Amino acid sequence: MVEHPKEFLLELFNAAVEAAHPAQVLAEHLPQDRSGRAIVIGAGKAAAAMAKALEEHWEGPLSGLVVTRYEHGLQCDLIEVLEAAHPVPDDAGREVAERIMGLVSSLSAEDTVFCLLSGGGSSLLSLPAEGISLADKQQVNRALLKSGAAISEMNCVRKHLSAIKGGRLAKACWPAQLHTFAISDVPGDDPSVIASGPTVADPTTSSDALGILCKYQIDAPASVTEWLNNPASETVKPHDPVLENSHFTLIATPQQSLEAAAALVRSKGLTPMVLSDSIEGESREVAKVHAAIAVHARKYRQPVGTPCVIISGGETSVTVKGNGRGGRNAEFLLSLANTLKGEQGIYALAADTDGIDGSETNAGCWLTPDTWSRAEQLGLNAEASLEDNDGFGFFEALGQLIVTGPTRTNVNDFRAILILNEDQ
Amino acid sequence: MVEHPKEFLLELFNAAVEAAHPAQVLAEHLPQDRSGRAIVIGAGKAAAAMAKALEEHWEGPLSGLVVTRYEHGLQCDLIEVLEAAHPVPDDAGREVAERIMGLVSSLSAEDTVFCLLSGGGSSLLSLPAEGISLADKQQVNRALLKSGAAISEMNCVRKHLSAIKGGRLAKACWPAQLHTFAISDVPGDDPSVIASGPTVADPTTSSDALGILCKYQIDAPASVTEWLNNPASETVKPHDPVLENSHFTLIATPQQSLEAAAALVRSKGLTPMVLSDSIEGESREVAKVHAAIAVHARKYRQPVGTPCVIISGGETSVTVKGNGRGGRNAEFLLSLANTLKGEQGIYALAADTDGIDGSETNAGCWLTPDTWSRAEQLGLNAEASLEDNDGFGFFEALGQLIVTGPTRTNVNDFRAILILNEDQ
Repeated sequence: MVEHPKEFLLELFNAAVEAAHPAQVLAEHLPQDRSGRAIVIGAGKAAAAMAKALEEHWEGPLSGLVVTRYEHGLQCDLIEVLEAAHPVPDDAGREVAERIMGLVSSLSAEDTVFCLLSGGGSSLLSLPAEGISLADKQQVNRALLKSGAAISEMNCVRKHLSAIKGGRLAKACWPAQLHTFAISDVPGDDPSVIASGPTVADPTTSSDALGILCKYQIDAPASVTEWLNNPASETVKPHDPVLENSHFTLIATPQQSLEAAAALVRSKGLTPMVLSDSIEGESREVAKVHAAIAVHARKYRQPVGTPCVIISGGETSVTVKGNGRGGRNAEFLLSLANTLKGEQGIYALAADTDGIDGSETNAGCWLTPDTWSRAEQLGLNAEASLEDNDGFGFFEALGQLIVTGPTRTNVNDFRAILILNEDQ
Repeated sequence: MVEHPKEFLLELFNAAVEAAHPAQVLAEHLPQDRSGRAIVIGAGKAAAAMAKALEEHWEGPLSGLVVTRYEHGLQCDLIEVLEAAHPVPDDAGREVAERIMGLVSSLSAEDTVFCLLSGGGSSLLSLPAEGISLADKQQVNRALLKSGAAISEMNCVRKHLSAIKGGRLAKACWPAQLHTFAISDVPGDDPSVIASGPTVADPTTSSDALGILCKYQIDAPASVTEWLNNPASETVKPHDPVLENSHFTLIATPQQSLEAAAALVRSKGLTPMVLSDSIEGESREVAKVHAAIAVHARKYRQPVGTPCVIISGGETSVTVKGNGRGGRNAEFLLSLANTLKGEQGIYALAADTDGIDGSETNAGCWLTPDTWSRAEQLGLNAEASLEDNDGFGFFEALGQLIVTGPTRTNVNDFRAILILNEDQ
């Protein structure tokens, strides 16, 4: 029996975030000899926390520059930490990217570079390719974010419009020894997708990028389509010799965080069931499937006996049609509420492990069986809020937002559904 | 190890259908004294098979009339079996409904009526309410079927436009002893939803029906909106005395069929995992979640260890945008194929237990890991087929349709995903 379901769900979320935090996971992956001189570069929502963890555990001289999202910075002693815009790149990001390219462009095989990558790095490390203005790149980015495209598709396009992504940063570092430490926020943990893979080979092509723009009917500027039709827009392909001295290590993944939450569930005497670390799809529909599984567990003790917690990660998407506020986790939870309609014994939380759901001020939201009746009392209509993509507004009115501020890590979405026995 | 994955999945589907077949499940629910005189009425895809099973096990005089879908009929000795149109009602359905209402309208408390209900009964037992033409009802029905509305929503509207549904048939039978035997094809097995609940109370209201028409922007004829604003359009509400002599028994459910398939999986030494018997949502998005779970099982042996079979039921929906062919199971499997992209070790089947996927000639389809490469060889593009809602065309070209003809029962969708160990 869980005495405080909401607090329990929040504990699970915190355990998931903690398991992915650079302060917990970076040190063990550093080379045994930590005495050499190293240059540090990096980008992502975890960049500042990764730089700080590196400083604390590295013994030799360090210098360098990383970029993180606005309000995600931390004071470091040796490494410069700058901030830039996410998810839509800005001038600050471009300036940092130019400086980073400059830092690594004339190194020798005796030099060591640490590249610290995490989710968000794709937008933050933004250096448009030859002939493409930042405004043109921003226009394409904004359109993609609204289109319902998967993150892997958005990143394919971004990589081919960039002077730094798709392995181009590794190419600039060559022939230095390059160690990339990455925190995965992408389904499947593919290194070429995390932060758009600036230090790894890219299997996608310019032609793929053109296909994605077409598929989502993105009205791209002429400079963009011209560049994508230019062979120079191709990224660094597998087996390119410039990748010889490049080493890639995943230091945190969505699955590790789900496992940490599952271990906590188990320690409290309940059964955890991790559905998947990589669920994609339209948030509101993904929620219907989660709701059906939760109801089934309560009614038939399948696919898992109660009391239990169903846990899932990944990255759902929202095709925006309304004018409301809210990220994909708020949308998920609103649809879950609208499907469960106050079903007894089912509690849920959905939040982004980076602490920011979409472009809102909350990490996510939570719900209990009485969310439905409380919403009705307040005159809130879940169906209408969902039509308006207003998950934030719905849960804000109920006082059911989860606000953490930036967590300075990012292993994507975290969803947990607590299901009590039928007699509870 | 499963030697013939496709055949194994077909066996599971057959077991699910078999477990819901009237010949298997009706007899045990008949009253102990089977010697009296009884009148038989009924409607649905299983109506003929239910009538036949009743004839075989009842010992007293029987007479009556049931209606089933075209091509779902069976020759009975004592009970007349007629056919009508589904999912869009026609004149034949209306004539049967009028005759059935006539059969039960002047009975006494000494009479016994058996009412045999199954999925499809809603369209087949079609008698428009006062002042509404069949054409008007058909127009609303067609619009609803294309709108993406849930079956429960479609049935709410249908009940309020009917002279026979929403408890009105039970009202006509009163004061006779009425025994309803039903096969559930609806998520949650709610008797008021199965075949639009002609013999049970209806908790929904005319105002709900108006709300649904509005939500899906159905352009309803004036006769329809006028009738729904007339208090006479209200259905029979709970605790109405006309329901006193009415008894309702579920003789088959989706869950029983999923359990039968699960038992067969277990008997072969694999682990079954029943996700839910009542999954709703947009087919293509529901497929993405199933794909993520399957991939996760293969990679992490969560939420279930391999080799395993993930089984689910319910009724997904398709918001038709393209011009292709295919029911919701073809759409589900096409999206699954498009997400898995030939992932090794994963085999799947999705089919409607009634033998007809949507309004096509197939029950469903199957896929294997080489479906992806075979499709590519044939120049088929899964993404484009999905955009065109052409699951039927895609799997027909591959020779991967499942064609059973009418099964004469209906416990809704059946999905099974076989996942082998990573080294298989």
